[in-house]
Amino acid sequence: MEKAPKLQSTSKHLPGSGQGRSRVVIENVKPEIDCGRFAAKRTVGESMTVEADIFADGHDALSARLLYRKEGISRWTEILLQPLPNDRWRGAFDVTELGDYYYTVQAWVDRFESWRQALAKKADAGQDVALELAAGALIVEAAAQQASDEDQKSLKRFAAMLRENKPAAIQSGLDDQLAALMEQYPDRRWAVTYEKELRLNVERAKARFSTWYEIFPRSCATTPGQHGTFRDCKERLPYIAEMGFDVLYLPPIHPIGQSYRKGKNNALSAADSDVGSPWAIGNKQGGHKAIHRQLGTLADFKDLITAAKQLDIEIALDIAFQCTPDHPYVTEHPEWFRKRADGSIQYAENPPKKYQDIYPLDFESERWEELWNELKSVILFWCEQGVRIFRVDNPHTKAFPFWEWVIGEVKRTHPDALFLAEAFTRPKVMYRLAKLGFSQSYTYFTWRNTQSEITQYFTELTQTEVSDFFRANLWPNTPDILTEYLQFGGRPAFMARLVLAATLGANYGIYGPAFELCENIPREPGGEEYLNSEKYEIKHWDLQKSESLREFIARVNHIRRQNRALQSDRSLRFYPIDNPELIVFSKSTEDLNNIIVVVVNLDPHHTQSGWLELPAEELGLDPKQPFQVHDLLTDARYLWHGTRNYVELNPQSAPAQIFRVRPRIRREQDFDYFM
Amino acid sequence: MEKAPKLQSTSKHLPGSGQGRSRVVIENVKPEIDCGRFAAKRTVGESMTVEADIFADGHDALSARLLYRKEGISRWTEILLQPLPNDRWRGAFDVTELGDYYYTVQAWVDRFESWRQALAKKADAGQDVALELAAGALIVEAAAQQASDEDQKSLKRFAAMLRENKPAAIQSGLDDQLAALMEQYPDRRWAVTYEKELRLNVERAKARFSTWYEIFPRSCATTPGQHGTFRDCKERLPYIAEMGFDVLYLPPIHPIGQSYRKGKNNALSAADSDVGSPWAIGNKQGGHKAIHRQLGTLADFKDLITAAKQLDIEIALDIAFQCTPDHPYVTEHPEWFRKRADGSIQYAENPPKKYQDIYPLDFESERWEELWNELKSVILFWCEQGVRIFRVDNPHTKAFPFWEWVIGEVKRTHPDALFLAEAFTRPKVMYRLAKLGFSQSYTYFTWRNTQSEITQYFTELTQTEVSDFFRANLWPNTPDILTEYLQFGGRPAFMARLVLAATLGANYGIYGPAFELCENIPREPGGEEYLNSEKYEIKHWDLQKSESLREFIARVNHIRRQNRALQSDRSLRFYPIDNPELIVFSKSTEDLNNIIVVVVNLDPHHTQSGWLELPAEELGLDPKQPFQVHDLLTDARYLWHGTRNYVELNPQSAPAQIFRVRPRIRREQDFDYFM
Repeated sequence: MEKAPKLQSTSKHLPGSGQGRSRVVIENVKPEIDCGRFAAKRTVGESMTVEADIFADGHDALSARLLYRKEGISRWTEILLQPLPNDRWRGAFDVTELGDYYYTVQAWVDRFESWRQALAKKADAGQDVALELAAGALIVEAAAQQASDEDQKSLKRFAAMLRENKPAAIQSGLDDQLAALMEQYPDRRWAVTYEKELRLNVERAKARFSTWYEIFPRSCATTPGQHGTFRDCKERLPYIAEMGFDVLYLPPIHPIGQSYRKGKNNALSAADSDVGSPWAIGNKQGGHKAIHRQLGTLADFKDLITAAKQLDIEIALDIAFQCTPDHPYVTEHPEWFRKRADGSIQYAENPPKKYQDIYPLDFESERWEELWNELKSVILFWCEQGVRIFRVDNPHTKAFPFWEWVIGEVKRTHPDALFLAEAFTRPKVMYRLAKLGFSQSYTYFTWRNTQSEITQYFTELTQTEVSDFFRANLWPNTPDILTEYLQFGGRPAFMARLVLAATLGANYGIYGPAFELCENIPREPGGEEYLNSEKYEIKHWDLQKSESLREFIARVNHIRRQNRALQSDRSLRFYPIDNPELIVFSKSTEDLNNIIVVVVNLDPHHTQSGWLELPAEELGLDPKQPFQVHDLLTDARYLWHGTRNYVELNPQSAPAQIFRVRPRIRREQDFDYFM
Repeated sequence: MEKAPKLQSTSKHLPGSGQGRSRVVIENVKPEIDCGRFAAKRTVGESMTVEADIFADGHDALSARLLYRKEGISRWTEILLQPLPNDRWRGAFDVTELGDYYYTVQAWVDRFESWRQALAKKADAGQDVALELAAGALIVEAAAQQASDEDQKSLKRFAAMLRENKPAAIQSGLDDQLAALMEQYPDRRWAVTYEKELRLNVERAKARFSTWYEIFPRSCATTPGQHGTFRDCKERLPYIAEMGFDVLYLPPIHPIGQSYRKGKNNALSAADSDVGSPWAIGNKQGGHKAIHRQLGTLADFKDLITAAKQLDIEIALDIAFQCTPDHPYVTEHPEWFRKRADGSIQYAENPPKKYQDIYPLDFESERWEELWNELKSVILFWCEQGVRIFRVDNPHTKAFPFWEWVIGEVKRTHPDALFLAEAFTRPKVMYRLAKLGFSQSYTYFTWRNTQSEITQYFTELTQTEVSDFFRANLWPNTPDILTEYLQFGGRPAFMARLVLAATLGANYGIYGPAFELCENIPREPGGEEYLNSEKYEIKHWDLQKSESLREFIARVNHIRRQNRALQSDRSLRFYPIDNPELIVFSKSTEDLNNIIVVVVNLDPHHTQSGWLELPAEELGLDPKQPFQVHDLLTDARYLWHGTRNYVELNPQSAPAQIFRVRPRIRREQDFDYFM
């Protein structure tokens, strides 16, 4: 037969020169968000686990490695992947720096290991392995060619032993030292590298673990009726720090518009004394880069940042990209707004409702590039003042491509910047925003009250691919949302929701002091707006009220800080309990050194009890040994036995228990314990 | 403010000129196999349904279209996508030609529809809509610019009516005719097209619906002990056709090697009279393009093809790419085989087992391109003789890239060629082969016996993404596999497995006559090999045995041909029944004109009964009306009421029922029916 012509093919997956011999398949790499269109997310100090399906035809042994590199570095670091059942392989690396990493997977048929396994089986069966030993010598000699001086000598020594074909040669072939050496010099001529370099975005730890408190600075004055200032805020800081919060989020601090200003309780017309909504941004004094005069100066604001920092609190600002008719943009850049047929600027509306105090920006403007650059400059301006956390108002009503671009741009110069998406909208829209780059996202937690609702939702958030791009930030209330559960459940409802938020979510926040003071009167029955909402007026809160939850909150936040298990959502697991009014879940560190089991009575009115079931082995417990659970809220300790245990919670005294599980350690004193 | 500089960005997803205004997101397009790396599959005459998540910021109305085109045609055909709940959209097109199609999705913010919805709401609320009407006129006039003469006139007329701002103008704006016209001329300046053109491979209907029968031609002689020929096979055709099979699959028909030939019952040494295994391919007379002399000539073979065709039967050949030591390749192309250290060719082994009669081809050979081309020429050779169906032996022991290439190559000249993958191996390997291009695949059906096993496996095959690339072909037995269930279940077991294979799978096959004659003696207890397996000897089957299932099989295959529901797997649904020894499932056509409900008693030894539950509405039944179920196996008819009905099956008489569901049609004669 004559030499066959070169292969022809119409497929774009035609094997190129030599590639026909690359027999390994790599598929189903995880994490991989939308086919690699978006980055997976981790925080500094976390581990990044990567899995892939890897296999080849036949039964040869394979080797597989996880490759990763920090952006800007071209050299890959390699990690061995370990085989799991069903052709799945897994490996992990620690992320230590802010910014983007890239990762991919490489695998190849491992001729040496295939040979070694066959040798072992044949030798065990007493077969003549002379030819096998000679074949092995060839493989080892080829590796020696690639090896450094020292290793080369060792490999050549092994090859020589294999060639001697003595009984000892088999032992040499199976020697672990030889295997370890050969692993250093694999034959990767026909290695397959996964076709994509996947991106991993690494943010600072606060993206994963943060405790938010929202206040209106204008309500911080010590004298009732006075307009609060940044200085008043500064005075409030110790109160906030004592409760254990580390992010203080302020609604917009910019000049407030006069045109169509809303009055108290969102009245269509405002009295002269009405202060307006902070989200109605812009007047003659300025827009998104200016400070509302009554709050103080830029210097006062920076002073607040500094003072907060001393208490380990970061100031988060609100980014609400919308304008009142009085905003300087309206006159300077009318082209950034949509026009009505008469040339006037289109106000916001949700027909038939009209919001004439708000002009939305037009992301379809012909001058969209100028608009984008200006909005970017707003965020950068506040970065320059020292702000690094932004809570973005209604991002789902601005164009998605803008967010991807602007977050990327800001992070290029400020990789420590964090963005929280306040998007209470449809699920796919919320997820898209997270993929586009938001560090954290508001969630439906606010309205998930029952055992099954919570279990289903948080299983989706933490146990599916969602956990790779969406970081939940749980809010039991906001200035816009006083839920029915809080309206009718009294103080126990506030306690239960606080514990749920603080333990289901490594990131959570409350709108205070309304929350700790258990403010629960809605503007109208069936609605979720607060009566006399702080959005439209200055409030004076009595922080010293005896029913305040401030100490309870402090306790819960202290527990969060002390227990690493609560500082991440990845380990969240729900457990069965025979009463649907109770919910049981755990979080634990990977090493199981810190295991927290939380039980919450979801019924704020009645004592509820039930038998819960813990998966002892998953939690590293010996199911035949008793173990201690230590309620970190009350400091009570209980001895539990086996997987099934009884709990009873009276919502009036304690609607929740946060147990630290303390497995028994076998030692002499154990004996005393039972005496 | 000065004109802002152009955008800068480090992201590869930077919006290009104008793209910043493209606000729509298209994601999660289905089907999309491995991020578009592989084609989805359909057959000629089927409908292709495509879904995607489509949404934008805010609340504007969207329009979305499915675009598709046949390979080689650059113009897209467009289909309107319809919105489903939760931002999901769906559309479908019919495939009519063999070969590749491409499809993608396009969507945009629909300004006209957004305007129309807002107009309706504002008009309903009695608001002044003068400015809205003027804005609408502008939108309609812009569309008119794009429109053909006739439509342009109509659109201009509508625009003029809107400009009149009379009460009638609102009605004009909401006129469906205007909406239909506007749909013709959408403003797609900022339309978003999904970033991939996804591939759809269309094969002929037999890829979806086929009924296979496997025989050894050498066992077809009418005189016991004689070596059967293709002419004997031809005589057997009416018997096969009467049973209703349309694919006759022959094990390899090539010269059989002498070296290390296996004797009866796989004995290590063969007697002179032993005929050897047909899968031991190649001797001095030739290899994969030659015919085993005792079977006849190439002309005889082609004659068999022609005769079969007249009975609507296609001949399928076995592609087993392996050689005996006597195969011409061994001397002509020793470079296509792996060498041992002494220069001899490496035989197959699974240490410590040796298969010295088989030399595997070395897909890592330096001459791999020549090898690939030669193997391709083997398939093309048989295509040229008129064969279009290939059952590929152990494809999972040959390099995956080879299969993708060779199937693509063969289909380029023979788009009607079909390939069945005989890969009884790990799940991911089986799925990969299907993705690479195999038309059909053997499955684990062979060993799935219980209600839960069958339900779980076939739900995975038919109700997940697997159904888009993997077409099951169900075999209750093969020459290699006599299952325990068949060994111990007697004739009822054969009947139950036949009905399961023939109704769960639009593609199924049996190895006969062993199957219809209920041959059930294994070579050794606990094994799955047949005693005196036809693989190693010539058998003479008594086709007239009274216990033969030939008539039962004929009946089942007749039912398959008469009922379109059974000719596809996509509609398979399992239903609850309160006895785990019974299984109930349905298949139906999309229009529900043909609904088949199958009940099988999985226990071949005892009568089993139970209450099953049908989802009346899903099946288009009125739950308040009785309906008829007609057992197509026995012709018995039953009147069922509501969703819960009783069944009882005695395996000795009938281990299965295949009901055609006949919903009541309300008419005069109904009355008579109950009299």
